[in-house]
Amino acid sequence: MADRSPRRPAADPESFHVNAAGRRVPLDVNGHVSLPYEGVGFHRAAGSKHGPPIRSCSEYPADGDKRVADLKAALERCGLRDGMTISTHHHLRNGDQVALAALRAAAELGVKDLVWFPSASFPCHEPVIDLMEQGVVHHIEGSMNGPLGAYCSEGRMRGLGVLRSHGGRWQAIQDGEIHVDIAVIAAPTADPFGNADGSHGPSACGSLGFALADSMYADRVIVVTDNLVPFPCIPWQIQGNNVDFVVEVESIGDPSKIVSGTTQLTRSPDRLLIAEYVARFLRDAEIVRDGFSFQAGAGGIALAFVGFIKEIMREQGVKARFVRGGSSSYLVDMLNEGLTDYILDGQTFDLAGVASIGSDPRHVPTSPFTSYNWHGKGNFASMVDAVVLGATEVDVDFNANVVTHSDGMLLHGIGGWQNCLFSGCTILALPAFRDRIPVIVDEVTTITGPGELIDVVVTERGIAVNPRRTDLLEALERSGTDLPIRSIEEIKQEVEHVVGGPPEKPRLLDVPVAVIKWVDGTVLDTVWQVADEAD
Amino acid sequence: MADRSPRRPAADPESFHVNAAGRRVPLDVNGHVSLPYEGVGFHRAAGSKHGPPIRSCSEYPADGDKRVADLKAALERCGLRDGMTISTHHHLRNGDQVALAALRAAAELGVKDLVWFPSASFPCHEPVIDLMEQGVVHHIEGSMNGPLGAYCSEGRMRGLGVLRSHGGRWQAIQDGEIHVDIAVIAAPTADPFGNADGSHGPSACGSLGFALADSMYADRVIVVTDNLVPFPCIPWQIQGNNVDFVVEVESIGDPSKIVSGTTQLTRSPDRLLIAEYVARFLRDAEIVRDGFSFQAGAGGIALAFVGFIKEIMREQGVKARFVRGGSSSYLVDMLNEGLTDYILDGQTFDLAGVASIGSDPRHVPTSPFTSYNWHGKGNFASMVDAVVLGATEVDVDFNANVVTHSDGMLLHGIGGWQNCLFSGCTILALPAFRDRIPVIVDEVTTITGPGELIDVVVTERGIAVNPRRTDLLEALERSGTDLPIRSIEEIKQEVEHVVGGPPEKPRLLDVPVAVIKWVDGTVLDTVWQVADEAD
Repeated sequence: MADRSPRRPAADPESFHVNAAGRRVPLDVNGHVSLPYEGVGFHRAAGSKHGPPIRSCSEYPADGDKRVADLKAALERCGLRDGMTISTHHHLRNGDQVALAALRAAAELGVKDLVWFPSASFPCHEPVIDLMEQGVVHHIEGSMNGPLGAYCSEGRMRGLGVLRSHGGRWQAIQDGEIHVDIAVIAAPTADPFGNADGSHGPSACGSLGFALADSMYADRVIVVTDNLVPFPCIPWQIQGNNVDFVVEVESIGDPSKIVSGTTQLTRSPDRLLIAEYVARFLRDAEIVRDGFSFQAGAGGIALAFVGFIKEIMREQGVKARFVRGGSSSYLVDMLNEGLTDYILDGQTFDLAGVASIGSDPRHVPTSPFTSYNWHGKGNFASMVDAVVLGATEVDVDFNANVVTHSDGMLLHGIGGWQNCLFSGCTILALPAFRDRIPVIVDEVTTITGPGELIDVVVTERGIAVNPRRTDLLEALERSGTDLPIRSIEEIKQEVEHVVGGPPEKPRLLDVPVAVIKWVDGTVLDTVWQVADEAD
Repeated sequence: MADRSPRRPAADPESFHVNAAGRRVPLDVNGHVSLPYEGVGFHRAAGSKHGPPIRSCSEYPADGDKRVADLKAALERCGLRDGMTISTHHHLRNGDQVALAALRAAAELGVKDLVWFPSASFPCHEPVIDLMEQGVVHHIEGSMNGPLGAYCSEGRMRGLGVLRSHGGRWQAIQDGEIHVDIAVIAAPTADPFGNADGSHGPSACGSLGFALADSMYADRVIVVTDNLVPFPCIPWQIQGNNVDFVVEVESIGDPSKIVSGTTQLTRSPDRLLIAEYVARFLRDAEIVRDGFSFQAGAGGIALAFVGFIKEIMREQGVKARFVRGGSSSYLVDMLNEGLTDYILDGQTFDLAGVASIGSDPRHVPTSPFTSYNWHGKGNFASMVDAVVLGATEVDVDFNANVVTHSDGMLLHGIGGWQNCLFSGCTILALPAFRDRIPVIVDEVTTITGPGELIDVVVTERGIAVNPRRTDLLEALERSGTDLPIRSIEEIKQEVEHVVGGPPEKPRLLDVPVAVIKWVDGTVLDTVWQVADEAD
């Protein structure tokens, strides 16, 4: 077994800066100058978008057939070299077999020190740890869910992890902060020209939006499919005009892990209560009205919330203009029942969602560009009236954490979470404690979202409204709500009383293992190595 | 009346170069170094695509409402200045009212020396001549149909006209050869965020593909609509994330001139015969087979050809995989009859086409990027089995002209014509003479397409196959065709005999007035000033 001792050097105080969130962040991230977070909306973008190399049709087959034998051949023809950045995407979620196949093909070609730049990684990607131990992969820039996050937390990765939101990932690619040498795109359907679609085929996953930036900006693009159709593949979520090579494989993933058969509501009475509170809050704060919009994820509370909000909408006779996915059968039912004009969908969580996005023109795939990119001419996120999100911790200033647990372990990615904070009303829907560990704390372990953007915290023990949102408080007063509106401190004290005090501080070493990027590319916080038993 | 004497200086022999087509072309085009044409596929692209400025959501309204009072206010907020390049698009064809409104608003703001960069101009844009006379517009880079072409031909425009194909226009924008300061996009439907669609609304035109490059690469983008809908405008052919301002106007154009009620077949017996020859040629050359594809325009011969090819397809029991528009009811009927799986459509010519593209997912809007851009990783044009095109002249080496008449007058744009030459079988379908002027000549007035890409010339007096295409000649032999296959020289001699000799040489001055760009950005030919009666 390879040596598993920590590899990260301790922090040099000279090379850190205390940012506008009061967090100590490195000035150098994997050899690139990084800018400290300056506050919401303060950092001014400058310069030009990345311009990928100009290609010419004379370099590509006139008949449009870009197939090559396998991933190894494709990587070779892309000019794979040591130190390159290889991107993959998480639309196949924990069923993905393409990312690992690509990195293993690279290993067989004998290259070293790759940067793996996934849009997110999942437990199925745990074998990348071996590739890091072997030196094939130098480090990961991208969300690390589960075992890869733990590996990073233990200080075992050679480079710093860089966590970005979905919008931040688009921004980084578009702005040239990240140069993707080779993008490998898993495609549930594709044609020999490289047009690719996620909404059809045996491994259908819905949208391929997470791979769109890579297809546009990477030097070289490989499409990998297990469902080749004659040109043209319609719809072309990825355009073949951006694709260099097409590889046909037997299977790109395990369909049972790509999307659920059906998504499950929570049965926990506490969580159902939280979901109901959120829906009633939107009603009483006068947010539910004809033409409104909301976004909720696929977690148990979020799904239950959709059930409650539907009831309220029916009662009040209102229709949403759009709802944002992650989509599931619950949102599809809303569309079919006429409770919303459109679903604007970033990813699809169950078979009903896949069927709908593949057939109903009112169920529209979106990309991180349309929805989340902060360095665009606006994005959809700020036009959503209300969003319901989770968090691992929230503090009394409403700052929230979505990446580390209170023991300091990095176990989750950011996803679209940071980007969604710009909605008209951002609600964290949280159980007040988990495993007897309070969720409301004095100071979050890792700031992932600044408190000024978080408007409401809903727990089973009460609802705290950010005092900055006097407009929401006034609306609640007007409507004479009977919801348990309380201060966040009061809820915190009650929980601490129940569980016997605030959570223990995590035992962290002064060794950075990852950084949390804000939506504008600045560094919001640092993730520090977790001390093991011996430290 | 303003002085209407010619303004262009005579050619300085030092500043010209004889290119690979044997044509004398300028090395300086409006102050930019230009590269002479090097032959088909010889010019190697280099460098990076243009990167437009990085913007930030903090500069745009969070509620997504980008409306401003009128075009003048929008142009002012875009920072309009002397000498800027303003682009507009021709999807509203001769019904367009937006381009002129934008240029007149600029005139009211007092700016001078603008470059107008339309994707094409039409007779409705004739008043731009006054703006050129007043100094508001310096010159036009874009196709000039009708009166503007004549103005240019007479040497009256201050700058050189630059004619590009649809694909060449994308290439020039993408590669940064043209920097668009402000794009003004007429939108039959749009929302306040700037998402825009051409397939719905009272001024519906079909696809907005011609404006796509401008929306992605221009510094500033204004959407002008007469049909504002609440966010989201679905589909979003133009993405609001690329748009700076939205202007609502009473009308963007005259619907009766935007699309025809119905497109008209030719009734000329000669032209019907040509159309029939083309269809029979495709059958006898073994191009009509299951899964094949073709493109034909909306001219009388092309429409009649569709009728004949449908009969042949029915007889042979074959189905096309795709047909390419310009679409009309004739192609829509094919789709509905099951004679093709898809229409891949660049522009829509009649109401049946608009209704179909707005409702049938098998009728897919395309853009010059997908279809025609030579500086991409392939494009659709070379995957089309056969294309039927027109021309003003063709010479005995199969070089063809589509922009000038044999009197030298510049009266037509290139459109997608150059890009389509890359199809598997490129057919020019032409009457052998027009107004007693032969169409087959010794040397074309202006080379718009190199003869090596033109495979067949079909006239009512016979069909000439380019001797390079021995494969086609062999297939014809195999099928024992009864078509009148003849040499191009033989057809030429016969026509000259009928009309009394070859056409007169045009009377041209040694003063360049416009250049013809090839698909790769090099200069293929020069258009020279036409001598007037006094010269």
